[in-house]
Amino acid sequence: MENFTFSHPTRIHFGRGEENHVGDRIRRRGGTRVLIHYGGTSAVKSGLIYRVTRSLERAGLATFPLGGVLPNPRSGHVRNGIELCRKENIDFILAVGGGSVIDSAKAIALGAAYTGDFWDFFDGKAIPTTVLPVASVLTIAAAGSEVSPVTVITREDGMLKRHYSSERIRPVFAVMNPELTITVPPYQTASGATDMMAHVIERYFTNTTGVELTDRLCEAVMLTIRTEVPRVLKDPGNYDARANLMWAGAIAHNDICGVGREQDWASHALEHELSGLYDCAHGAGLAVILPAWMEYVMQHDIARFAQFAVRVWGCDMNFAHPETTARAGIDAFRAFLRQIGMPTSFADIRAREEDIPTLIDKLHLGHNTLGAFVKLDRNDCENIYRLACRQTTAP
Amino acid sequence: MENFTFSHPTRIHFGRGEENHVGDRIRRRGGTRVLIHYGGTSAVKSGLIYRVTRSLERAGLATFPLGGVLPNPRSGHVRNGIELCRKENIDFILAVGGGSVIDSAKAIALGAAYTGDFWDFFDGKAIPTTVLPVASVLTIAAAGSEVSPVTVITREDGMLKRHYSSERIRPVFAVMNPELTITVPPYQTASGATDMMAHVIERYFTNTTGVELTDRLCEAVMLTIRTEVPRVLKDPGNYDARANLMWAGAIAHNDICGVGREQDWASHALEHELSGLYDCAHGAGLAVILPAWMEYVMQHDIARFAQFAVRVWGCDMNFAHPETTARAGIDAFRAFLRQIGMPTSFADIRAREEDIPTLIDKLHLGHNTLGAFVKLDRNDCENIYRLACRQTTAP
Repeated sequence: MENFTFSHPTRIHFGRGEENHVGDRIRRRGGTRVLIHYGGTSAVKSGLIYRVTRSLERAGLATFPLGGVLPNPRSGHVRNGIELCRKENIDFILAVGGGSVIDSAKAIALGAAYTGDFWDFFDGKAIPTTVLPVASVLTIAAAGSEVSPVTVITREDGMLKRHYSSERIRPVFAVMNPELTITVPPYQTASGATDMMAHVIERYFTNTTGVELTDRLCEAVMLTIRTEVPRVLKDPGNYDARANLMWAGAIAHNDICGVGREQDWASHALEHELSGLYDCAHGAGLAVILPAWMEYVMQHDIARFAQFAVRVWGCDMNFAHPETTARAGIDAFRAFLRQIGMPTSFADIRAREEDIPTLIDKLHLGHNTLGAFVKLDRNDCENIYRLACRQTTAP
Repeated sequence: MENFTFSHPTRIHFGRGEENHVGDRIRRRGGTRVLIHYGGTSAVKSGLIYRVTRSLERAGLATFPLGGVLPNPRSGHVRNGIELCRKENIDFILAVGGGSVIDSAKAIALGAAYTGDFWDFFDGKAIPTTVLPVASVLTIAAAGSEVSPVTVITREDGMLKRHYSSERIRPVFAVMNPELTITVPPYQTASGATDMMAHVIERYFTNTTGVELTDRLCEAVMLTIRTEVPRVLKDPGNYDARANLMWAGAIAHNDICGVGREQDWASHALEHELSGLYDCAHGAGLAVILPAWMEYVMQHDIARFAQFAVRVWGCDMNFAHPETTARAGIDAFRAFLRQIGMPTSFADIRAREEDIPTLIDKLHLGHNTLGAFVKLDRNDCENIYRLACRQTTAP
């Protein structure tokens, strides 16, 4: 096990009706002029934005709505938010939505208190000194952005999708009411669950030995996702199943599954170019990349893939031929992705084999490599994209 | 699943050598005059107290050592600590030790900033407004006090063992270097592991349904303890096994295994009277109580005990007779406790059947009950103590 630090300063308020107390919670943390930041019209139509605004008004806070965040959020929207914050002297940002809304709220929080352009942080040209506090009312179980110090933004100029991480942008609190996720459509539910699964897989496949506890915690989260997604798809109103998925999204990404071990993250980088170029759901892109990545790197550690197969997918261990078990685990994972309606090939997300050179160029690898479990050079990345092309399309 | 709040503000610094940076960490948090609070002479002899003191001195902090904390820490020691803090204007408490040292540091932190007697908090007569900040350098994997808001103190007058909980006494940081636990003797190692196991079991046996994820997380921690304790007893210097146990102690008690569900805690209450009266190790007392409690309440939820048997102890599920499996799980747990050298009967800890009326009186139950999974009245508690008497003694 490697040395590590861990804390989870984001306060979680989990359960039914919690969004109605959000005004008091912001006031207690010193917020007075609050940007209410959201995505499309669904949060307005459902009455959620109204309820949240009422809660803030009852607490005596001034509110400034800003909607229109898109999936794979863009730098243009972030700049609009920064401008509004400066103009209205906003001192607190409440993100009402999923990962895209929270990620762009974090980027606005960075930029509003900085005199230069916010992309400087993503380019490594600046380090934040002060940022606006961010909190969230989560509406989809997926990205884990509600508890993470990370934001992912796409710069329109070149459609570059890049991430930035700082403890300063970790949300101060998160309201997680599973009822708010009941109306999330099946495809988005499954995409979100795939993203969570990926957050665990990126931590699970490691070269660090002696990490029994985090292995077991990773398996606990993956087993939960495996159990609860089919339940939710069958019965979208199942509160407990929605609740377990929503909490799994936070546990998958608060690093309790990743401390003390080398983490990989190559699949995320490979996927970011897919959703950057084709604007597919991040989880859908991951469903295409992950099985291909697994096939490609499996030989590096057959025992670990066999453990994944046995403990997560309930495969029988073939003690004489562990590779058979390892392969059965990848097959079971791919079958699970198809069962929950995820794409598993390039064609399913309208990605094209002839774009692979473009995808590789956009990775800007040069002589660097991606990932840690197996370090991938340009050639490896190309091979994985090609494997993902050739995977059977979803039925 | 029930509504809940969760956060983990205690910052963990985990791994080799972390204790050498403790001075800087305290200074950054505003400490200037620091009580170094420890237990017996082992921390002095090992050079740990010297190294920690050097780190504080290098950071320009004034240090005030106070040793002599005993297991099952007493109110008299707490009062001495409070007096020293007031006399020397101490503004930060660093606990170097295990649960007893950290628990009494928390009680000192409560009392030093309060004009009345610190027991007022335990009696419910006062609520803390300000307390001194507490941090720890942990030397045994066990109580989880390094991340919890709880302190347990024994009042000499009547040997009353009572607990108090407040977010204000949750440690601000914890240094967890597994190397510091390598010299912990086998019996203390096993007692500590039993305490951790109990922290999970008190959360695992619940009437709350639909808590798949926390069930799985509980099982992950129990599987880790089951795997790592025998490894550590066989090879006390196994760093990774020590590290997994140490981190399991924190995960078992930071409530990540307990959120959203009714928790029990009857076994802890029943045990506190044992260690209060006989001064046995808390973990040893739990090893005596837990199997008896399980036997007594098993009929309440055979399915849950079968799940415990199959998922944690690897028992075969007897689908036709689940009770057989449930019983096999309790037997496997008891066998594990014996294998790691724990007592499993009253006689093993020199407790006496004729003291049972005294133990029951000290519980001060009146018409109240203990626990939640099954609510235990005086009669139930007596039956469990009698079952614990009759369990076979350790070989």
